[in-house]
Amino acid sequence: MKYLHTMVRVSDLDASLEFYCEQLGLEELRRKDFEGGRFTLVFLAAPGDPDAQVELTWNWDPEDYEGGRNFGHLAYAVDDIYAKCQHLADAGVTINRPPRDGHMAFVRSPDGISIELLQKGDPLPPAEPWASMPNQGSW
Amino acid sequence: MKYLHTMVRVSDLDASLEFYCEQLGLEELRRKDFEGGRFTLVFLAAPGDPDAQVELTWNWDPEDYEGGRNFGHLAYAVDDIYAKCQHLADAGVTINRPPRDGHMAFVRSPDGISIELLQKGDPLPPAEPWASMPNQGSW
Repeated sequence: MKYLHTMVRVSDLDASLEFYCEQLGLEELRRKDFEGGRFTLVFLAAPGDPDAQVELTWNWDPEDYEGGRNFGHLAYAVDDIYAKCQHLADAGVTINRPPRDGHMAFVRSPDGISIELLQKGDPLPPAEPWASMPNQGSW
Repeated sequence: MKYLHTMVRVSDLDASLEFYCEQLGLEELRRKDFEGGRFTLVFLAAPGDPDAQVELTWNWDPEDYEGGRNFGHLAYAVDDIYAKCQHLADAGVTINRPPRDGHMAFVRSPDGISIELLQKGDPLPPAEPWASMPNQGSW
């Protein structure tokens, strides 16, 4: 038995690829359009970690996707949580839970999927602007 | 950057461990109780695939967890999709999307998390009772 992917639905494929790839740092592995079913699947993974994937399902007919409480989040380890959060913030992504502790941060995708970022190894030393940054919203 | 886990909330830890471990076939890697926050985290993974985990969050104060449409499912490859579905069915799990094609099935956790099962490699030859089994509910 082997983990393959977590599937999330996206309402705007371009905005979602901007978030998951350009901002968060995943890369696209493959995509397939299903003309009959009017949907597109795009498989993403962290660079160098292609076995653990996120599957984006984009239904061509518009739908707004809201979250429920049974799903919590996707979690990724990152090499430098401050650099990752700065990159996300510079791109306009709200850092819902800033890495005040040099260890953990949360952001959300355009469709409200919560993403946890965890510093690899030991926490980084506390540093501004993160150390004094308040939470924003929920995650 | 490296995928760590997908977190899902569970309303009944015992029933959830019965589903995810005894029925689905994941194994428990570690757990931690947080007395102050009144919750328990349990990390699971497929045997031999410990890097891709599911984190169960069990809040000690009762809450019913419903799903939203932004999260789709967790997907696992299995060695024998008929044997896996038979094991699940024997344990009382509804096979929402039976593996009629010898390739793909869907079930749900006690809190409604959709789980996709995919046959490793080529699909198995069609076989009863799966080939003629109708869908049940949604997934």
